[in-house]
Amino acid sequence: MNKIEEFNAYRSRMNARILEDNNKIVKRIFNLDTNAFMEGALPKKTKELLGLGNSLVLRCDDCVKYHLEACSALNVNTDELVEAMSVSLLVGGTIMIPHLRKAYEYWDLLEAQKK
Amino acid sequence: MNKIEEFNAYRSRMNARILEDNNKIVKRIFNLDTNAFMEGALPKKTKELLGLGNSLVLRCDDCVKYHLEACSALNVNTDELVEAMSVSLLVGGTIMIPHLRKAYEYWDLLEAQKK
Amino acid sequence: MNKIEEFNAYRSRMNARILEDNNKIVKRIFNLDTNAFMEGALPKKTKELLGLGNSLVLRCDDCVKYHLEACSALNVNTDELVEAMSVSLLVGGTIMIPHLRKAYEYWDLLEAQKK
Amino acid sequence: MNKIEEFNAYRSRMNARILEDNNKIVKRIFNLDTNAFMEGALPKKTKELLGLGNSLVLRCDDCVKYHLEACSALNVNTDELVEAMSVSLLVGGTIMIPHLRKAYEYWDLLEAQKK
Amino acid sequence: MNKIEEFNAYRSRMNARILEDNNKIVKRIFNLDTNAFMEGALPKKTKELLGLGNSLVLRCDDCVKYHLEACSALNVNTDELVEAMSVSLLVGGTIMIPHLRKAYEYWDLLEAQKK
Amino acid sequence: MNKIEEFNAYRSRMNARILEDNNKIVKRIFNLDTNAFMEGALPKKTKELLGLGNSLVLRCDDCVKYHLEACSALNVNTDELVEAMSVSLLVGGTIMIPHLRKAYEYWDLLEAQKK
Repeated sequence: MNKIEEFNAYRSRMNARILEDNNKIVKRIFNLDTNAFMEGALPKKTKELLGLGNSLVLRCDDCVKYHLEACSALNVNTDELVEAMSVSLLVGGTIMIPHLRKAYEYWDLLEAQKK
Repeated sequence: MNKIEEFNAYRSRMNARILEDNNKIVKRIFNLDTNAFMEGALPKKTKELLGLGNSLVLRCDDCVKYHLEACSALNVNTDELVEAMSVSLLVGGTIMIPHLRKAYEYWDLLEAQKK
Repeated sequence: MNKIEEFNAYRSRMNARILEDNNKIVKRIFNLDTNAFMEGALPKKTKELLGLGNSLVLRCDDCVKYHLEACSALNVNTDELVEAMSVSLLVGGTIMIPHLRKAYEYWDLLEAQKK
Repeated sequence: MNKIEEFNAYRSRMNARILEDNNKIVKRIFNLDTNAFMEGALPKKTKELLGLGNSLVLRCDDCVKYHLEACSALNVNTDELVEAMSVSLLVGGTIMIPHLRKAYEYWDLLEAQKK
Repeated sequence: MNKIEEFNAYRSRMNARILEDNNKIVKRIFNLDTNAFMEGALPKKTKELLGLGNSLVLRCDDCVKYHLEACSALNVNTDELVEAMSVSLLVGGTIMIPHLRKAYEYWDLLEAQKK
Repeated sequence: MNKIEEFNAYRSRMNARILEDNNKIVKRIFNLDTNAFMEGALPKKTKELLGLGNSLVLRCDDCVKYHLEACSALNVNTDELVEAMSVSLLVGGTIMIPHLRKAYEYWDLLEAQKK
């Protein structure tokens, strides 16, 4: 199992575990999470870039990976991605750098897998 | 002086004061701040929405105002704006709500002034 | 209008403004916010104290006020409140202190109004 | 050594190392940490849930584990725990989700070990 | 009453109010706060600059004011202060800027009062 | 490869990867990062302690490691280091503790390697 598969296996297994408990608040928020990134007044791609940027400045590496996967699936190219991440680097400062390293590493894995 | 003018007068006056001290790091970061939102691989509008979203989840009301002004100048419409902010609300949770209230208030002032 | 009325008037007016736009994500999260603090496996009072503690460490003064009002309405006494806030002070450090000052000030207003 | 033992072994070893240096501020804060969760105006269980909620929204996985152990020792049941965590999820937003996954995983280990 | 006096009057009044309740955790943390910045292995001035830098990146304007007063009392000069703040600006990113504006404004008041 | 070498190898490799993309904002911020800690109005040692303190309260373990290495290279002694970290512990609260554990562990490795 490569790093991408590992991340997704853990994510799926534990999300299923969390939803098992049937807490209404939890279930609805998980639900909204799939709804919020649908095509709307803004294109899907812009929304995923927003999700990525928000996750980066909040320094949530797993959230970043999740949005990187969606960006890759929507064919965001590396130039677009880097520009979005540069905004977060400027806004969030150099404490972003370790998170950028992980983001780049995951992005390269996603792009390599695509070929 | 209305609320928009007040915000900008204070902002300009104090930014000038900060730059007066000629600190290299400070000057370069202020400089980058105007560069990062230029047209590039991503359109200006997307970048400003990214700046807005990043500022919202980091809960910086003054940064939000700054990007709301840029969004308004770029003719982002209210539907687009609300969708961008809804992503930040979901990602950042209900502690976003007080910041949303201030953002909406400022947006309505900006839109009213436009007419 | 006293400080409590002022806070609530602004809050109600702007929440109504936000909900006017009919964004699905926003509406559902506002909805959940009233649902999450209902009696359940945990008593209402514990849940409001949790909401208060979460808001304090995240340093959201307006969220703190909101939960202080709910705590006051549920007859949380000052000893209970102070213990809950002392946990947040320890966990969140001395940057909590300015937020504690505002919380105490608002709590005293709420208690005075009760009499 | 299982994951629970590993976490506690590292924790104990490094805490001892930190206290070795005899810094007054550090020692007192470590001391307060054991005092703040004693029975008082609020029951121990409520205080541990507060510690858990605070740690979750501040996204400190190791702090979450620490309070999960205390909750488990105090016989907090899963329904109570999930309700407390659902408040933090709502207040803190979807960036809580990766931390919820880890919290659930650790909770299940604790509950399994209990039997 | 000028802005400096106003800040200190509110601070003193509310700190006294908080300590009135005699919560052990709260009292000890307030106590530590005066102890932590004493001369030690590091000079007082370095410690106050550390307090300032920590407060800036955590974006606590009132904490920043408090440490600016201490820095001013210890005759930190503007060059030293600006360098310390430039580190925080770089580490914390452009969301620091609104906090820098307030810090500069307060510093100028403190320096003017000194003459 | 020991833990220090591992950290630095990953850091160097991924920083090079990030800079490869030639994004202007990213390159300039990386550049500033080496400039900001130069001798100036404040001695290098004070600046590195500021970088360390800022990184600690922002809870960026990799940033902490980076500044610990610089502190070690500048012959900051353990007493000075512990005092600087105690300020961050007080300001940032007990959620600092897991980060202190990692910081101490890395510091001990650095000091052991020095001999």
